[in-house]
Amino acid sequence: MPEDGTFDDRVRDRIGDVNSLVCIGLDPAVAHLPPHMGRSVESAVTFCQAVIEATLPFAAAYKPNLGFFVALGRAGFNALWAVRHSIPRHIPVILDCKTNDLGETAAAYARGWFDEFDFDAITVNPYMGEDAVAPYLTDPRKGVLILCKTSNPGSGDFQDIRDGAGVSLSLRVADQCRTWHERYPASVGLVVGATYPEQLADVRRRCPEQLILLPGIGAQGGAVAESLQAGLDRAGGGLLCSASRSIIYAGSGLDYDTAAGNAARLLRDQINASRAPAPANA
Amino acid sequence: MPEDGTFDDRVRDRIGDVNSLVCIGLDPAVAHLPPHMGRSVESAVTFCQAVIEATLPFAAAYKPNLGFFVALGRAGFNALWAVRHSIPRHIPVILDCKTNDLGETAAAYARGWFDEFDFDAITVNPYMGEDAVAPYLTDPRKGVLILCKTSNPGSGDFQDIRDGAGVSLSLRVADQCRTWHERYPASVGLVVGATYPEQLADVRRRCPEQLILLPGIGAQGGAVAESLQAGLDRAGGGLLCSASRSIIYAGSGLDYDTAAGNAARLLRDQINASRAPAPANA
Repeated sequence: MPEDGTFDDRVRDRIGDVNSLVCIGLDPAVAHLPPHMGRSVESAVTFCQAVIEATLPFAAAYKPNLGFFVALGRAGFNALWAVRHSIPRHIPVILDCKTNDLGETAAAYARGWFDEFDFDAITVNPYMGEDAVAPYLTDPRKGVLILCKTSNPGSGDFQDIRDGAGVSLSLRVADQCRTWHERYPASVGLVVGATYPEQLADVRRRCPEQLILLPGIGAQGGAVAESLQAGLDRAGGGLLCSASRSIIYAGSGLDYDTAAGNAARLLRDQINASRAPAPANA
Repeated sequence: MPEDGTFDDRVRDRIGDVNSLVCIGLDPAVAHLPPHMGRSVESAVTFCQAVIEATLPFAAAYKPNLGFFVALGRAGFNALWAVRHSIPRHIPVILDCKTNDLGETAAAYARGWFDEFDFDAITVNPYMGEDAVAPYLTDPRKGVLILCKTSNPGSGDFQDIRDGAGVSLSLRVADQCRTWHERYPASVGLVVGATYPEQLADVRRRCPEQLILLPGIGAQGGAVAESLQAGLDRAGGGLLCSASRSIIYAGSGLDYDTAAGNAARLLRDQINASRAPAPANA
């Protein structure tokens, strides 16, 4: 697989190669590590590496979550670096950092996450507006996944506010994401929680061609079949279903990695059973 | 000064002690360091430490910006740690990270920024809603500054969207910030750009008692007198005027630290000339 395609191309290729829409969230909370591993920074890294190795055949992408690396303190960046570089280069890696800032600061984030850490995509919060998103959109090989409708109960506090024409903030964001995807070199996708299938369907109608990252499957209770029906694109893809705890903490014994691999395979199969028509390369 | 008061108390005390509303933004972009220093991670840290030492007498607070530490790559967290711990413990330090995430992830960020890195306050993006903000609000000694109306031209893309009653998103956020300040143990303040003095005045009317962090003075062109009139609270305080590049890059020679100190003193004096009535402890 060429490494110089767009982020969207690379995700599509990987989905085809492994016939999987599963994106595995890497949330290494030391309190949740298998008891025999202890609670050190090193064990968090070892844990992630073992989970990555066991889940590789079923992973369309990986999504390390910055928060859990911040919680590791000043060693957190070394851990993040080690985890990122444990994932083979041809598999898309999305840093879930929900970054947002302006001008030179945004450019500094882009340089850090994309060039220094070599992430393929990042999540970005749109609240600050287009000129705060544009600095992440200059590299055609990279992806930016914009928070649109998040999976939490409180997401409606602001995202459901309707303008004078009755359009919610999250759909205003979706409309902008479509424009940005057309206007800038990078691939622009959206983050929509699996817990809101109706709003997911609305977003898919407005953004038929864009990648949607769907958190909230599994531990957060999003129903798989309903989410897929609402979120798949016309070709039966365009969707990354992100699950973290339900996969990486599937087991807590010595065989925790095998348990994670089994959970990833099960989710892949459960998702594929709801995908119709099956993709041509399945 | 006691270190166990609320964040608001500590800021108010420090403003009184140095008779200054200046918050110094630490944005160590290696490309902007004085040429004689080179462009290493170590020089970024040395630069910040020298600027801190020279500006201490005029600083109500410091605000390191995470983006510039991310740009340093995997050594960025060690640099951030070193910079934070170069600032005396009694001076409030705000990490400008614009964090936003849910549940366990938000709690992980809180643990990392507040407990591991020992920051006194962080900036938080409100897009995800109250249940995504609450995990940062549990510690009465800490502060959370919520993005309300940001200083950039594109801030209106979403923040100016008006609901059916004609209230803008940024003012809906301001109303929530007031509620959160009353309801949670931590101090809740707001971030409002100096570039929008009318909206700053609206926010101050809705949140008369809360701390406002005002970026955009200096390099971004916000007018000092107008901003102060709009943003000061009834006691002539409650405002941190944040300036970064105009202070830390005031000079580029061997005496860059002296130049930074002079720029900070000048800004303090310029701000104080617009403060009326003078605070009782000035």
